[in-house]
Amino acid sequence: MPQILRINTRTQEYSFEEVGTYANLGGRALTSRIINQEVPADCHPLSSENKLVIATGLLGGSTAANSGRVSVGTKSPLTGGIKESNSGGLFAHKMPKMNLLAIILEDKPTDETPFSTIFISDGKVEFRDASKIVGMDNYPAHDILLEEYGNKLCAAMIGPAGETVRKTATIQFTDPYKRPARSAGRGGTGAVMGSKKIKALVLDPEFNNKVTAADPETFKTARKTWVKMLQDHPVTGQGLPGFGTSVLVNVVNEAGALPGKNFRYGQVEHAADISGEKIAENIEARGGKTTEGCHAGCVIQCSQQYNNDKGEYITSGFEYETVWAFGGNALIKDIDQIAIMDRICDEKGMDTIEMGNTIAVAMDGGIIPWGDGEAAIDLLNKVGTNDPMGMIIGNGVDFAGGAFGVERLPTVKGQSMPAYDPRAVKGVGVTYATSAMGADHTAGYGVAQNLLKVGGDIDGLKKEGNVELSKNLQIATAAIDSMGFCLFVAFAVLDASDGVQAMADLVQAYTGNTFTTDDLVNLGIHCMQDEQEFNKRAGFTKMDDKLPRFFETDPLPPHGVIWDLDEDELQGAKV
Amino acid sequence: MPQILRINTRTQEYSFEEVGTYANLGGRALTSRIINQEVPADCHPLSSENKLVIATGLLGGSTAANSGRVSVGTKSPLTGGIKESNSGGLFAHKMPKMNLLAIILEDKPTDETPFSTIFISDGKVEFRDASKIVGMDNYPAHDILLEEYGNKLCAAMIGPAGETVRKTATIQFTDPYKRPARSAGRGGTGAVMGSKKIKALVLDPEFNNKVTAADPETFKTARKTWVKMLQDHPVTGQGLPGFGTSVLVNVVNEAGALPGKNFRYGQVEHAADISGEKIAENIEARGGKTTEGCHAGCVIQCSQQYNNDKGEYITSGFEYETVWAFGGNALIKDIDQIAIMDRICDEKGMDTIEMGNTIAVAMDGGIIPWGDGEAAIDLLNKVGTNDPMGMIIGNGVDFAGGAFGVERLPTVKGQSMPAYDPRAVKGVGVTYATSAMGADHTAGYGVAQNLLKVGGDIDGLKKEGNVELSKNLQIATAAIDSMGFCLFVAFAVLDASDGVQAMADLVQAYTGNTFTTDDLVNLGIHCMQDEQEFNKRAGFTKMDDKLPRFFETDPLPPHGVIWDLDEDELQGAKV
Repeated sequence: MPQILRINTRTQEYSFEEVGTYANLGGRALTSRIINQEVPADCHPLSSENKLVIATGLLGGSTAANSGRVSVGTKSPLTGGIKESNSGGLFAHKMPKMNLLAIILEDKPTDETPFSTIFISDGKVEFRDASKIVGMDNYPAHDILLEEYGNKLCAAMIGPAGETVRKTATIQFTDPYKRPARSAGRGGTGAVMGSKKIKALVLDPEFNNKVTAADPETFKTARKTWVKMLQDHPVTGQGLPGFGTSVLVNVVNEAGALPGKNFRYGQVEHAADISGEKIAENIEARGGKTTEGCHAGCVIQCSQQYNNDKGEYITSGFEYETVWAFGGNALIKDIDQIAIMDRICDEKGMDTIEMGNTIAVAMDGGIIPWGDGEAAIDLLNKVGTNDPMGMIIGNGVDFAGGAFGVERLPTVKGQSMPAYDPRAVKGVGVTYATSAMGADHTAGYGVAQNLLKVGGDIDGLKKEGNVELSKNLQIATAAIDSMGFCLFVAFAVLDASDGVQAMADLVQAYTGNTFTTDDLVNLGIHCMQDEQEFNKRAGFTKMDDKLPRFFETDPLPPHGVIWDLDEDELQGAKV
Repeated sequence: MPQILRINTRTQEYSFEEVGTYANLGGRALTSRIINQEVPADCHPLSSENKLVIATGLLGGSTAANSGRVSVGTKSPLTGGIKESNSGGLFAHKMPKMNLLAIILEDKPTDETPFSTIFISDGKVEFRDASKIVGMDNYPAHDILLEEYGNKLCAAMIGPAGETVRKTATIQFTDPYKRPARSAGRGGTGAVMGSKKIKALVLDPEFNNKVTAADPETFKTARKTWVKMLQDHPVTGQGLPGFGTSVLVNVVNEAGALPGKNFRYGQVEHAADISGEKIAENIEARGGKTTEGCHAGCVIQCSQQYNNDKGEYITSGFEYETVWAFGGNALIKDIDQIAIMDRICDEKGMDTIEMGNTIAVAMDGGIIPWGDGEAAIDLLNKVGTNDPMGMIIGNGVDFAGGAFGVERLPTVKGQSMPAYDPRAVKGVGVTYATSAMGADHTAGYGVAQNLLKVGGDIDGLKKEGNVELSKNLQIATAAIDSMGFCLFVAFAVLDASDGVQAMADLVQAYTGNTFTTDDLVNLGIHCMQDEQEFNKRAGFTKMDDKLPRFFETDPLPPHGVIWDLDEDELQGAKV
């Protein structure tokens, strides 16, 4: 049986525990259950009472395609509510090979305590001196860890943003290409790790127990069905592998739903310059790779390697959301500058969505000119230093709005919105409003039905049908995040009559426990209930399940649509 | 009948309106009713939907002793909840002489609009060019207004903190000595005025209608009874006039309730150096004045004029709360440095309580050393400039905590605590927790019964009796703030069997409307109901009526007491 590793970061004591009441949970369902059960909802996110949980999904360690996402849970420094942020990288499949279902970091040492690297091996946890990498950016620090631990390094680490407990700080995970390029991006999980004075978590490269499915034959069959489903669907089989997620730039812009200039417009003129097609063209011309997976076992391969015009590596995991945040919302037209900003965010360990929106707020407040990429790069580089401007920028949109006197702040529960204007994509707008996570497209991606017409066709410009859509997607997503699947599998699942059954079959065959489609739905519902319970105890009400008022009052060009769902309607999306 | 003047700061249109449904309200009851009725609870405090209301009390314009406080109401940029902040100065008694009960500033112009001075005369409102005083500190700007409008100037104005919409920004009012030394201090009212691009409001010095009591003879008798009551009480007749409010430094320190080093201790070693006795000694030695009133008709005279060692004027309204915030909580031992900080706060237009606590948080975060007055002065002087550190400091405790990574933040609803540790003065602790205003001693001053043994004797170290005490005090205070009385009259009222009757008699004789002691109590209750209703619609729950958790976990020396009232007990203090 996999165990839960509980580490006290103050006393450096640890214990490997049986899963007990946390049995049959994984990924997000597990992190959210632990946070809801063990963390006082009204504690300060950076206090000793908060915990940081890293959990693998129900399919972690398996060979099921696209099941290698790892969940990070905590009370969010950004939102003050519960947070699950998930990431690719090597952690999810590695943990079960070390007999680990979850790692819980508890308590915190004094402010004066130096940062440590925690090294986890067979039945043993060591706090190691991190002085060689403290204060360093993620890539160079990761290189030092590679030297120290070898090429099988599997690390989770924070950059200068996390060390300085910025509210946008990420935890970066080793990807399959020996880079710290995968992020648990949203909600400031890296600040919680920083508050506990942990610079990196390293999993012993030499500890690799063999993990097998409980019912190998059934699993093998289910796995084949599953791969075929993903490869046959036009989005997961062709669109995403071809141009990465940035294939959406032109699509969403055409639909009039690409937020421009701090959510003033639904289209930007220079969309083609920052599109997935443009990115692919540059990659072709400069070397690099148009397809990469964020974790072993990925068959979608939506990631890439993006080089500069000298053919030097700049970044990977260069997502649509990132490109939009800097390129659309902050009006920066140079895709190479945007790539550099993506890299800076990975280096400092900062959420790209929150940072792009923050840069837009800085522009709105007159701190730097609209569209000025060089000035934006300067601001980003201040984060993680003692520069007060870096303290501001690193704390995200609402904080920057308070500093710069900007009241146009596209946030819900303190977290800023991703790359779809909720007025024109109301299915995802309902998710922004009602998710316990704050404005989060991945919590219930109504874009699929509203714009892409995958899994249904519901008009995103009108409110009809979108509350129910979002609710169902939020439940399904919570289940997907709990099994450890990449969210993109949903494109295929939603269009397949046996999609949900295929996922359930995989879990049942892998774990050996009965797992029906009803169990799968209940996994999602119970996960959301944990999250909503926590937030309620933290003081959230239906007034927190709303969009900022300017969405209700300012029509969005070109469609002239406003946000017209009131707080009582929106409660229909809660479980 | 006095009227309500409604001014649109965008269109510059205005109207003088009958009071209508706002009849029989004044001061805080009126501002809170208007905000609750007219402002969308979920609007951004700096948006066009917020309003700023300035109202005189039910006894405004009268000769009743100590009835010249003016109320400022808005949705607070600091707390996100409703706010009434009241001040001395000339406004309250002047408004009725211009037939005004309240002035409401509505809407807002574009960010590019230059600041205006609003000049209000008989039936007319003018937006005048404010370019001569924009960007200036309050004293020099006020001097220019004195030149322009003469010695009868009656102004309300904002400093650089308000112009830059800092969350700690005050509105400063002309005092009886031609200085802008009286503040509507708490909750960032000045930022709302700044967002509406109003630098100053000036009431026409030449417009002075005679105001008389409806029943002059009865009023005269009631007034005499009232004055005698105030003059006969040891606190209002002797303690406050002798040493000002800073008489409390030694008293509260002796009681082990003076918060030291960001609320770590209940006593500081250097209390004598920053005591009211020391201040009085300096004033005697250097010239200055030990007694001044903040408004015409004050018989308590707790204010003063404090000079430096060259005999030059530094500040007045040098309150206990200010002295404690910088001197106790930030451990600055030099009373002259503290006086300079008080002056800087008046110059920039910043709340001294919030700023002292913010400086303590900066010290806790290692930004400047503990007790370093010069470094603190440097930080304060950055507010209102483009310096990012000034943006941080000017936004108060919670904001600075977010910037500096400090989790020990003594705030409720985003507003920081005044000069009484709630663990040792639980009567005021209940008020901090449950007041709609955030942590506010003036909303229900349990210190009276807990420490001073005025109006009863209830142990501040134990919770018994303190919920009911706070509730009753909060109701009484809301009524006092609505009549326009200075809160200090409560010392006398609480110890007199006919104190409440005396206040009711004054209102009835002055207004000509029946006003019993029951009416007085109901005035307070209805005012609190408006405030709680607004906050509920803004998303506040009982989880917001709590103290930060460190008060529950960390015992306070020297008594070793903790905060032990849970959220359900605390609800007993709500109406």
